Amino acid sequence: MSLPQLQLKSQADRRLRKGHLWIYSNEVDVAATPLKSFSLGQQVEVTSAGGKSLGLALINPNNLICARLVSRDTRYPLDKSLFVHRFKQALSLRESFFDAPYYRLVYGDSDLLPGLVIDRFGAVLVVQIASAGMEALRAEIVAALIQVINPTGILMANEHSARELESLPLYTEVVYGEVPEQVELIENHTRFMAPVRTGQKTGWFYDHRLNRACLQQFAKGKRVLDVFSYIGGWGLAAAQAGASAVVCVDASESALAGVMANAELNGFADRVSAEHGKAIQVMKAMIERSEQFDIVVLDPPAFIKKRKDHKAGLAAYRHINELGMRLLGRDGVLVSGSCSMHLATKELEESITGAARHLDRQAQLIARGSQGPDHPVHSCIEETEYLKALFYRVYHA
Amino acid sequence: MSLPQLQLKSQADRRLRKGHLWIYSNEVDVAATPLKSFSLGQQVEVTSAGGKSLGLALINPNNLICARLVSRDTRYPLDKSLFVHRFKQALSLRESFFDAPYYRLVYGDSDLLPGLVIDRFGAVLVVQIASAGMEALRAEIVAALIQVINPTGILMANEHSARELESLPLYTEVVYGEVPEQVELIENHTRFMAPVRTGQKTGWFYDHRLNRACLQQFAKGKRVLDVFSYIGGWGLAAAQAGASAVVCVDASESALAGVMANAELNGFADRVSAEHGKAIQVMKAMIERSEQFDIVVLDPPAFIKKRKDHKAGLAAYRHINELGMRLLGRDGVLVSGSCSMHLATKELEESITGAARHLDRQAQLIARGSQGPDHPVHSCIEETEYLKALFYRVYHA
Repeated sequence: MSLPQLQLKSQADRRLRKGHLWIYSNEVDVAATPLKSFSLGQQVEVTSAGGKSLGLALINPNNLICARLVSRDTRYPLDKSLFVHRFKQALSLRESFFDAPYYRLVYGDSDLLPGLVIDRFGAVLVVQIASAGMEALRAEIVAALIQVINPTGILMANEHSARELESLPLYTEVVYGEVPEQVELIENHTRFMAPVRTGQKTGWFYDHRLNRACLQQFAKGKRVLDVFSYIGGWGLAAAQAGASAVVCVDASESALAGVMANAELNGFADRVSAEHGKAIQVMKAMIERSEQFDIVVLDPPAFIKKRKDHKAGLAAYRHINELGMRLLGRDGVLVSGSCSMHLATKELEESITGAARHLDRQAQLIARGSQGPDHPVHSCIEETEYLKALFYRVYHA
Repeated sequence: MSLPQLQLKSQADRRLRKGHLWIYSNEVDVAATPLKSFSLGQQVEVTSAGGKSLGLALINPNNLICARLVSRDTRYPLDKSLFVHRFKQALSLRESFFDAPYYRLVYGDSDLLPGLVIDRFGAVLVVQIASAGMEALRAEIVAALIQVINPTGILMANEHSARELESLPLYTEVVYGEVPEQVELIENHTRFMAPVRTGQKTGWFYDHRLNRACLQQFAKGKRVLDVFSYIGGWGLAAAQAGASAVVCVDASESALAGVMANAELNGFADRVSAEHGKAIQVMKAMIERSEQFDIVVLDPPAFIKKRKDHKAGLAAYRHINELGMRLLGRDGVLVSGSCSMHLATKELEESITGAARHLDRQAQLIARGSQGPDHPVHSCIEETEYLKALFYRVYHA
């Protein structure tokens, strides 16, 4: 196969040789291969300064990460056939862990498909494309999915901000078959209807599945507060496991309508209630009313979206964790999540430890969770790991 | 209560104020309160340089860590009553997670009982005492356990090397009721007989319970190799979950006899075999015979017992992980454990990533596990966290 070449500067192949997939624009020998000469999303052969082939990459000349490897073998382009191969590899991992077809089927770089995320809801697939290279291969992606999964519908949920960096338009579109407004999924023995067209991201967050399963282990008979609940992933998992009362808090009225509809669907709406408002305001009001819970779950959106938000974001994590801790009764459990890639686990731990010292409580870390196996971490790309869930028992000695 | 005082140097109270429990001998103002003036295991009141009370500690003047706090409140000594309180707090955590009485009941510092570890096997308790202070309170510990747990037998399994640092004798002794040679436990729906008098540590390792449960999620129909198997904790959990064939490897003949007896107990001995020998030699021989498995579990003893062993230990982890990886078939899972407190998780990850690069395999981190909730981590004492279990899918792209 004859591909245009993207030549790296001397030594700039080191990261790739160690297994990483990303190429930064300042690593390209632009005298030999000017970035301007490539079109958005073009497939190229990456070579070292010495001319050695390093693999096949999708290029985006306007981006700081100007190319990402999709294969070490440049004999075959990224086409329907390679997508079929990659999808089968991805499916094999998911099927070995999950006995029902509800999971993230493809997780970008980690499944050697940078810029592509696919969530599976039974026979419906929701696809997110984040790079111009993948966007150019949309037809091949759809054709390969039809061959491997045989879905009844495929939705492109391409509204996320990462696309703007790649100069891609934002849109939501059914590109194959039919996709209803809401689709059912089952997670941890709990049924949910996810609003795939209008909800957050793909409509659901499969990443915390095992952490919610951990919550179920000790939720029976407990009063549970689920802050930043979205449509009830944590709270309803607790209700399914026998929690005596669950309060879900969210700033979105439609998310809370989803909570109650999902509670009805599972037949335990009598033990679930929803409280609308901003998390901090609702928690402060609950503290004033002296409300107490056995378990408080905090699963906020990323407070640190970019490195420059780090300081303010860290303060926000500390603040909500201290508020959450104040809502625990004598011997309670704080479940503290973070999906900020830029927040180190250690920093989240220190926020909680600091809050415990400030409130003069003992804190025992009883479990630490990460993203589930359908969000594998690429062993050479630490950026593919982002999720944290820390479980602390908080008590008076 | 009037206690002898142990006075710290200026600033030496900082760690304690942040929540830590340990006092190093170089932090004591030995001019004011000579360490030599205290007896082994004596209870003392710790004070800051300014004379402020910091808490109650057990002292061991010969140890680098010369005292450990057991309480912030010096009004009450550590006696049967305080043990009862602490045991109830510890029990409450375990009962909230586990529906059967098989777990670590007390985990030292993390349960505010430094120097004391207790494993529970139903009505039998196995106690490990690691400090002179706790040894002096043995009668109170036993009396409190009888009150809180009402066991049929209590065994002191005091053979571990930590006692030598505290100038304590090594012994195994039934101090209450009756304790058979082997006691039953149930973990992850699997039955085991643990040799509490003659086995390793307390006879069993509850710490990997949740990691073994994770293994069970994907073990059905798989061929599993369990290296450093002891009496089969991992391998038999896999068999219970439906593994088609399990091979357990250990250097101890009696451990392997335990594997087969436990396999019989669960009725799946036809799918389990035992191979005697040193792990590295057995794995090398298997590689020569071109044997392959779907899952390889490596749960070695601590290769890094002390900081000075770090370099050699790290090389040993890298070596066994590469051997394990070579025994995986086309699309297998490597489960890599470490109980070395001195091995950082990142270092274990790098060993495995390095092995994968060397063998030209892709590796996806699909789960990361830590010690279970019956081995809580004290939020201010990072030394209480030691266990790692990393699950990697290893495949050819």
